Amino acid sequence: MNKKIYTLRELAAFLAAEFRGDPECVITGIGALIFAKSHQISFLSDSVYVKYLDTTQAAAVIVKKENIANKNSGNYIIVNNPYLAYARVSVLFDDTPPMPVGIHQTAIVGNDCKIDQEVSIGPYCVIGNRVKIEQGVRIEAGCIIGDDSEVGEKTRLCANVTLYHKTKLGKRVLLHSGAVIGSDGFGNANDKGVWQKIYQLGAVVIGNDVEIGANTTIDRGAIEDTIIEDGVRIDNQVQIGHNVQIGAHTAIAGCVGIAGSAKIGRYCMLGGGVGINGHIEIADRVVITGMANVGKSITEPGGVYASAIPAMPHRAWWRIIARLINIEELMGRVKELEKK
Amino acid sequence: MNKKIYTLRELAAFLAAEFRGDPECVITGIGALIFAKSHQISFLSDSVYVKYLDTTQAAAVIVKKENIANKNSGNYIIVNNPYLAYARVSVLFDDTPPMPVGIHQTAIVGNDCKIDQEVSIGPYCVIGNRVKIEQGVRIEAGCIIGDDSEVGEKTRLCANVTLYHKTKLGKRVLLHSGAVIGSDGFGNANDKGVWQKIYQLGAVVIGNDVEIGANTTIDRGAIEDTIIEDGVRIDNQVQIGHNVQIGAHTAIAGCVGIAGSAKIGRYCMLGGGVGINGHIEIADRVVITGMANVGKSITEPGGVYASAIPAMPHRAWWRIIARLINIEELMGRVKELEKK
Amino acid sequence: MNKKIYTLRELAAFLAAEFRGDPECVITGIGALIFAKSHQISFLSDSVYVKYLDTTQAAAVIVKKENIANKNSGNYIIVNNPYLAYARVSVLFDDTPPMPVGIHQTAIVGNDCKIDQEVSIGPYCVIGNRVKIEQGVRIEAGCIIGDDSEVGEKTRLCANVTLYHKTKLGKRVLLHSGAVIGSDGFGNANDKGVWQKIYQLGAVVIGNDVEIGANTTIDRGAIEDTIIEDGVRIDNQVQIGHNVQIGAHTAIAGCVGIAGSAKIGRYCMLGGGVGINGHIEIADRVVITGMANVGKSITEPGGVYASAIPAMPHRAWWRIIARLINIEELMGRVKELEKK
Repeated sequence: MNKKIYTLRELAAFLAAEFRGDPECVITGIGALIFAKSHQISFLSDSVYVKYLDTTQAAAVIVKKENIANKNSGNYIIVNNPYLAYARVSVLFDDTPPMPVGIHQTAIVGNDCKIDQEVSIGPYCVIGNRVKIEQGVRIEAGCIIGDDSEVGEKTRLCANVTLYHKTKLGKRVLLHSGAVIGSDGFGNANDKGVWQKIYQLGAVVIGNDVEIGANTTIDRGAIEDTIIEDGVRIDNQVQIGHNVQIGAHTAIAGCVGIAGSAKIGRYCMLGGGVGINGHIEIADRVVITGMANVGKSITEPGGVYASAIPAMPHRAWWRIIARLINIEELMGRVKELEKK
Repeated sequence: MNKKIYTLRELAAFLAAEFRGDPECVITGIGALIFAKSHQISFLSDSVYVKYLDTTQAAAVIVKKENIANKNSGNYIIVNNPYLAYARVSVLFDDTPPMPVGIHQTAIVGNDCKIDQEVSIGPYCVIGNRVKIEQGVRIEAGCIIGDDSEVGEKTRLCANVTLYHKTKLGKRVLLHSGAVIGSDGFGNANDKGVWQKIYQLGAVVIGNDVEIGANTTIDRGAIEDTIIEDGVRIDNQVQIGHNVQIGAHTAIAGCVGIAGSAKIGRYCMLGGGVGINGHIEIADRVVITGMANVGKSITEPGGVYASAIPAMPHRAWWRIIARLINIEELMGRVKELEKK
Repeated sequence: MNKKIYTLRELAAFLAAEFRGDPECVITGIGALIFAKSHQISFLSDSVYVKYLDTTQAAAVIVKKENIANKNSGNYIIVNNPYLAYARVSVLFDDTPPMPVGIHQTAIVGNDCKIDQEVSIGPYCVIGNRVKIEQGVRIEAGCIIGDDSEVGEKTRLCANVTLYHKTKLGKRVLLHSGAVIGSDGFGNANDKGVWQKIYQLGAVVIGNDVEIGANTTIDRGAIEDTIIEDGVRIDNQVQIGHNVQIGAHTAIAGCVGIAGSAKIGRYCMLGGGVGINGHIEIADRVVITGMANVGKSITEPGGVYASAIPAMPHRAWWRIIARLINIEELMGRVKELEKK
């Protein structure tokens, strides 16, 4: 593992932030405020936990100025947004194993590829024909890339990722293991009960700085392409149907399903397990809370939408269900009363 | 890529359909009516969009006779069901890369297999013992096939598919990347709180003309087999438990979960994210709309069932939830009024 | 396939149970009561089906004493819990193909690994550096194990499993194909709309006797580790977020999603498709029924919780939804009546 060591002064400089305390204080990792060990840096993002500043074992804490107004001692880095500063610092302590530059001798590369000299391609990868791989790309063991695909600068495919033919990935994309990009959209025409396959002629185009979670699937388009714009973040086990468009900087939590031809705006947030119907549009900056089902377009930007029911003791729930199923009868009784 | 070129006359002949206009009109692809380029064929499946016939750039359009009743010019193929005709034509423009016939030198094949001469097995595939692979099968890179499995004629396994031992696939089956067939069913007996594994002794049997989506999982049976009948279409990220039976020509959209021993009828349609309880039966031709939860058997064929709640602004939703939780109290107040 | 043959006497001895009938009766497999063939053993776990004891073709049946009180003939093994006894017997008839001991010549093993002599590592596996693999471990084809991981005694990785670096697996763990352990948690800090990645510095630690289903994903922790305790059973297509803790002997059915930092108690049962919010706690022995959404902590041990709505004919459902959306108006009318 690659242990990294920094001083408080170095971390503050990295964040272009003010600091207080011992500039030579040694920091070798990150810890949560209540669990941090003596050489870790921590952060206070929610003022509710300000009391833990007194008891934390952390070597230093990233804080807002207001949280240390009455502190006379301690090592602090002072920022406006401690959570964001923690995010920025986290890369310094990342211990993802490095990969040697070069193409592993067991990797199989097709014909007429354009592969930069400075790439890492791991064991048992299979790269198709006419694939373009740019500088700094890292493709881990067991990845399979179909013909005519393109992988932009510094993009990383974790182990066992599958790209079908003609997939285009932008720069600095991160795909987690088991992700499948470019599988056929679910296109079937009904012929007297029997399904006639609609061959999927489009592809998948993914922008820059996109992250795609483990075992997430993105289908290729039927005619036009499926499009994921820049900066989108997609968690694990998400299913994105053919011809979906996801606007830039939208975040999609785990287990979401987005049916074909849906168009999600930019800066949206979809909670875990949300379902989006096909052929609808969701405006920019819309938030859908977990396990909601969006059946119609949402045309106004920026609202928060929900439809999940919170779990409750099951007997109480089944009484409610019984009443709900008979709500029409209840309505009738109210109408009857109103007549009298 | 394999660009294909057809004339209007050829496509009409392929569809055994009448055409109007220039028989030598050249068609190199398919486009949606409003996006089609000048050498693409398009189709008009919904008469709502008939106005686009006047403005489309498409070389030709597949239409119903009634939609061009008043047209004096233009290139048309005339059919009863344009969407189905489009589906049929789509295969002509499919650019899925071909695979060379033969077994790649890095593929590992076990003992006592019966493999047809005319198959394509890609790099780094691992085929177990006593596996039978029929004529025209295509197994892409990184697939793993367990002992005693059978793969029928012209079946295609996309890259990184896993078949456990004793899996039987029919003819013309298509499995997308990351699909796992034959994993253990979720069988556990409780022994004073501790789970005792129930070894899963059945297998998975898949009929002809079945399509299975990316990262979909189908568990092997506990004692008898899990069965997917002919013509079933399963989308991505679907989970099918042990001993489930799916009737012929049923279509299952993404993210559906079907618990153990459920029996789904023929010609059913399950929307995205639907959950089916274990040990229930669903009659033929039943439609379950997206994200519904089917807890009991549906014995009458042909209905449409639902239980999803459409997302709405979250404040409005939480007011409704508060009222719903107190619906018993509301009922009580109505009863009190009725007494008076 | 490895057909196993036992006598009734042998099976009874294996279960340390009493038996009745022919001790030399030959048993070669297990069958359900109504489907069993003449050399299979069956079991009667639910007295509702006692009538099938008279008609079953099974060679012998595992029963409770009370179920054969009035039987004068037949071959029976008598136990308190026939379902559990069936579970115990099932391992004897398991036909999972054996793997030869040794490291396949195509497997790639990194530097400074500690690998026991008695392990099976299959073709095209890629094992990182400093990996520890204990006695009796079975790693099937195409598995990829990241640096600094540990795999405990008798653990089995089915084909195409991916472990990221620093993953720790206990003893007798079973991971099904397509499972991904240790992918990045979904950590993003928002910087004026743009997502800043939070590097995930923790790992995943899995206890003893855990089973993890096909295509299930478990994310590594952000700072501390994600923890799965002993005896946990997880079905297919489950998503477990970063820093989740799952208590010992909890069972999680297919398609469940558990958001980051949730803490599930011991001996819990989560039904299929359940969604658990992040940062909440669920007490021991809690049961959540299928497709429920748990938004808040459940602090009392042992209850059963629900929130799924059973599917119903869709017209009826849409009438109910219309009423539900206007429940506030109904409430207002009742209040109006009460005033009068």
